[in-house]
Amino acid sequence: MATDQVPPIADELPTVEPETAPARVEDDGVHADDSGYRQPEVDADAMRTLLDGRYGEVRDLVRANLAEHAQILLDQEQMTTADFRERVRDVVVMMAGTGQTGMGFPEEYGGDIGASIAAFETLALGDLSVLVKVGVQFGLFGGAILQLGTKRHHDAHLADLVSGRTMGCFAMTESGHGSNVQALGTVATYDAEAQEFVITTPDDASRKDYIGNAAAHAELAVVFAQLEVGGERHGVHAFVVPVREDGRVLDGVRIEDCGPKMGLNGVDNGRIWFEGVRVPRTALLNQFAEVTPEGRYLSPIDNPNKRFFTMLGTLVQGRVCVGGAGINAAKVALTIATRYAVRRRQFEATSPDEEQVLLDYGMHQRRLLPLIARTYALHFAQEVVAGHLHEVFSGPGPIEEGSDEHARRMLESRAAGTKALGTWHATRTIQECREACGGAGYLSENRFAALKADTDVFTTFEGDNHVLLQLVAKGLLTDYAGEFEDMDQLGMARFVAGLAVETVVERTAVHKLVQSVRDLLPGGDTGDQEAGLLDPNYKLAMLRFREEHMIGGVARRLKRGIDQGANPGAVFSRVQDHVIAAARAHTERLVLEAFVAKTAALPDGELKVALNLLCDLHALTTIEADRAWFMEHGRLSSARSKAISREINALCRKVRPLAVDLVDAFGVPEEMLRSPELLGWPIGSDD
Amino acid sequence: MATDQVPPIADELPTVEPETAPARVEDDGVHADDSGYRQPEVDADAMRTLLDGRYGEVRDLVRANLAEHAQILLDQEQMTTADFRERVRDVVVMMAGTGQTGMGFPEEYGGDIGASIAAFETLALGDLSVLVKVGVQFGLFGGAILQLGTKRHHDAHLADLVSGRTMGCFAMTESGHGSNVQALGTVATYDAEAQEFVITTPDDASRKDYIGNAAAHAELAVVFAQLEVGGERHGVHAFVVPVREDGRVLDGVRIEDCGPKMGLNGVDNGRIWFEGVRVPRTALLNQFAEVTPEGRYLSPIDNPNKRFFTMLGTLVQGRVCVGGAGINAAKVALTIATRYAVRRRQFEATSPDEEQVLLDYGMHQRRLLPLIARTYALHFAQEVVAGHLHEVFSGPGPIEEGSDEHARRMLESRAAGTKALGTWHATRTIQECREACGGAGYLSENRFAALKADTDVFTTFEGDNHVLLQLVAKGLLTDYAGEFEDMDQLGMARFVAGLAVETVVERTAVHKLVQSVRDLLPGGDTGDQEAGLLDPNYKLAMLRFREEHMIGGVARRLKRGIDQGANPGAVFSRVQDHVIAAARAHTERLVLEAFVAKTAALPDGELKVALNLLCDLHALTTIEADRAWFMEHGRLSSARSKAISREINALCRKVRPLAVDLVDAFGVPEEMLRSPELLGWPIGSDD
Repeated sequence: MATDQVPPIADELPTVEPETAPARVEDDGVHADDSGYRQPEVDADAMRTLLDGRYGEVRDLVRANLAEHAQILLDQEQMTTADFRERVRDVVVMMAGTGQTGMGFPEEYGGDIGASIAAFETLALGDLSVLVKVGVQFGLFGGAILQLGTKRHHDAHLADLVSGRTMGCFAMTESGHGSNVQALGTVATYDAEAQEFVITTPDDASRKDYIGNAAAHAELAVVFAQLEVGGERHGVHAFVVPVREDGRVLDGVRIEDCGPKMGLNGVDNGRIWFEGVRVPRTALLNQFAEVTPEGRYLSPIDNPNKRFFTMLGTLVQGRVCVGGAGINAAKVALTIATRYAVRRRQFEATSPDEEQVLLDYGMHQRRLLPLIARTYALHFAQEVVAGHLHEVFSGPGPIEEGSDEHARRMLESRAAGTKALGTWHATRTIQECREACGGAGYLSENRFAALKADTDVFTTFEGDNHVLLQLVAKGLLTDYAGEFEDMDQLGMARFVAGLAVETVVERTAVHKLVQSVRDLLPGGDTGDQEAGLLDPNYKLAMLRFREEHMIGGVARRLKRGIDQGANPGAVFSRVQDHVIAAARAHTERLVLEAFVAKTAALPDGELKVALNLLCDLHALTTIEADRAWFMEHGRLSSARSKAISREINALCRKVRPLAVDLVDAFGVPEEMLRSPELLGWPIGSDD
Repeated sequence: MATDQVPPIADELPTVEPETAPARVEDDGVHADDSGYRQPEVDADAMRTLLDGRYGEVRDLVRANLAEHAQILLDQEQMTTADFRERVRDVVVMMAGTGQTGMGFPEEYGGDIGASIAAFETLALGDLSVLVKVGVQFGLFGGAILQLGTKRHHDAHLADLVSGRTMGCFAMTESGHGSNVQALGTVATYDAEAQEFVITTPDDASRKDYIGNAAAHAELAVVFAQLEVGGERHGVHAFVVPVREDGRVLDGVRIEDCGPKMGLNGVDNGRIWFEGVRVPRTALLNQFAEVTPEGRYLSPIDNPNKRFFTMLGTLVQGRVCVGGAGINAAKVALTIATRYAVRRRQFEATSPDEEQVLLDYGMHQRRLLPLIARTYALHFAQEVVAGHLHEVFSGPGPIEEGSDEHARRMLESRAAGTKALGTWHATRTIQECREACGGAGYLSENRFAALKADTDVFTTFEGDNHVLLQLVAKGLLTDYAGEFEDMDQLGMARFVAGLAVETVVERTAVHKLVQSVRDLLPGGDTGDQEAGLLDPNYKLAMLRFREEHMIGGVARRLKRGIDQGANPGAVFSRVQDHVIAAARAHTERLVLEAFVAKTAALPDGELKVALNLLCDLHALTTIEADRAWFMEHGRLSSARSKAISREINALCRKVRPLAVDLVDAFGVPEEMLRSPELLGWPIGSDD
């Protein structure tokens, strides 16, 4: 637990049964008692089928591909960077040959968006350079050609890029412009005489940076640049620009290697400068805007900001993918740490003759089991986001302006929030699992080294998590897209100030929840009885209350600051932590709802009982983590707060005997675990 | 913030001054107002002198050495593992030539223990393979020869090992026996006829594992093994065993490379098996026990457990070193992230024309500034531990049985707690700083990659942090060393059960604090006035109350569980989180006391004002992090809890203008920062 917070603890002594009582701890750790509670058993295969959902076959295809190329986990350690980059490219191309990577494209290219997300997520069980290379080639580069381009671009490029014959890169981020894409410095000037665009990097802050596939492999780049036609700027647009031919960088293009990175060194990240590079007029990806040969600018979307955000909307798929990848990388770490924790013995405790296995220690249960529960919660939340993505993007063809904007904005918000929570969860879980495996966790053969180094940047790329949560908060503060989307934080503060607070709150989607919150919170929170703690409605109501209260609070604060005549930027700066907190609270509520809904829909049986335990564990640890807030806001008495911590400990003891089956249900191929010594031999003694 | 906890937020709108009011935000970020508060200025050099303390010259020597060998930071990226190991060895030997590494040895070898700790800590500003190699060679190997050996060993080895002419390793940990050293499996049988010990590895669980210097360089090993004389076992003892000569592994010794690791790949960790290796009788490090030529076992310490813990007491120096190293590694990360945060601009906020620098965002202040404050707190706490170590170990010669046992036990406890908090702080701070630098933080040239990978194992080595905190808790539960030290957790539970709770609490050193807590908490916590929040006595009293309450709670729970006849192991398992929490709370109190004492002793002036701000920020964020506990236990009203969060935000705004000077005062050599692009060029725009 790498935090300075003293972990929450229950204040009362848990009821410890005397040794003569019927309750007993058996050798295998299965607890049974007479109180009517029956310990469920989990069929790992059945649970895995449930987790895999409608794309079980796709996931199994990827698992088989991962197992076949398992050697790459070793190559990552042993090869030079240059060799490893080639190796990763080869594996990506081989996997493309199985159809695994083409699913995101229209049917003529084998496509099914939901399937492509499932395939990508599952790929995160293996080497993550392969994952990211796939993401760059098929998600970002391919996705831009597909979504921003039209038939001429599809015909020219899709077949070659889906097969991996043509490698490409997605040149958006610049050194001086990361999350603020609207401020990009690269310029594309239309030369009507030649009917060409001239791409130029005006200064070093505008060089393209961290571009995957750029340093070694990309032949084509989708370049985002400020479009200038006849002296007039029209905002950021995307162009297909050749950057390499037969391995040689083309004239006017300068590419520099980003050099060694913390992880993902199988991906060739680079920097690109353009010095007056000319591309034909047809290089503009013209789904949302066109420049006529004579130099007239046309777009079906009049508002430049709306146009910009519509184009950027295509990034949503990348965010869904990264969020899912983070959640699945966490599964690998949890599988290793949990299996190790039931093998490894440390000190004598229950018996003077034999040391106790790690997972029978209360602290170890507290470290790992809530993370397993949260992984399940995020898995089901991710399933919902991926499902929405599939619905929104599986129209008759590429998305068009005029498709359901509200659904798309909801999706963008949900994808942003889930990406943030899923990737932070990965960072935290992998770290906790590494520490839970002691010094052995530090050896590369035990996977944590690569997992930690490779996933670290997930919290940053496809949108920094804090910036993404601000995006979520924007969405929560108003539904009025037209007035809203063109606003930076300054604009948001000014905008909100122009409205009565009531109006803002009324406009939030959350407002309608207030009534149901009031209905659901059973008898307020005056009693200390623990009975209600396991009622899912209670927990959902708690998270809804927090969310609603926080969003209202942000609106109120913004308005008050502006009313007092303060500098809007200073107001925003002071409210920023509330903004982020409100967005987190919103996403946490969505995650729990997804878990509750999934569980409720199951037929009665062992799986349902087990998932209910996990859902309770997840919900209560989520409330416990923020129990101070609930107490501060009168939604939790101190007695009930302690009762929650007690209940979590009790839930951990119930989940303990299921732990191995629960992680086995993640379906991580054995070849992806490595860790021969952590998992494979009869380790005798303590850590 | 890699946790699922929604960050605490103040509930009330902070007073935002209208633009016409005298308070203003100036361009340079310095806030000034009329309320009598005057923003201090920090002279970074003066602060650095204060931080460096009595060993300023030693620290400057190490800084100069680091700067001279700065190239090694690049070598770490570019060399093969084999080459980098040699390079690290060379740098270690060159540094030894400056006297930097010999300070831990008696004066004839240039020694001063306090100086040696200062030197080691400062070394953590550079490449950490060098640091760990120094720790292995001079701290563990050299320390064992010095502390456990006698004149014959000193004469034979110290001069050569201090110069680095002879490299050695410290072969204690075994694959199956990490933290539980008493259970080691390696055996040393005395052969009276040959007057030799025969060292044997009975099984793979007993192979020595993760041994630094073993895979490539060590010629000698200090081997910990179960001593058997005439068929009788006498517990773990240490022997000097040659393992390599002229680069060749000696007969009977088998060494295997541990292979690639997450970090620290300049250190050659290995596994060692001994197959009946014979060493002369004089190879026993005989400070605390002797075997006569004819095979009689003699020791001045009768109790075998006491003997064991006396020998292990020499490990305390390693823990003090690792804790200090963690704290100093955090300084490097904070220096880079803070300097970056005042250069990098992101989005427009305060002005439509210019993007706002990161550190003017409230969230960014909340991310970095409390970590700076905590680093100062831990620095001063570390200064206290290092001072105690110096006093305890700077006797007339090597430590002897009969030296002040109480002082040593207090030191061991304090060292264990500070090591745990210092190394967790490093993990957390480096991660937060990496994320605060966005994608750029992921590039190796910006230091975070190595910092993160290299420090990761600090939380585990020289004692797993959780195990160390249990050690602290043991010490808190009773002062009775003789009855206590031979107890594993089972024993602890049984032992505590044998006493009335009152007695246990009475015996704790903390009990005497209860009265002062009552005296100090000003008027209880009934008022909501924020005045008392900045009174250091209030904050100390809060931490003391928590500590005392938690320790009493652990004792009460253990006793109740045992009284109910439950299995002691099961009781301990359930109380374990309380045990760990109590030990953390204890150490947190010590850390704050060190900070308060240091600040109080300063003469009035700017430094004192600035340190008081930092001390307030540290104390309040520590309370805030556990505010739920304080509310649950009636020590904090919800209104006052919110007031604390507000006050923290206000403190962050006051510390903001000092931030760069505060990190510059850490005195990290510029060459150790690298990060040319993060720090060196005029970055124009957002992240």
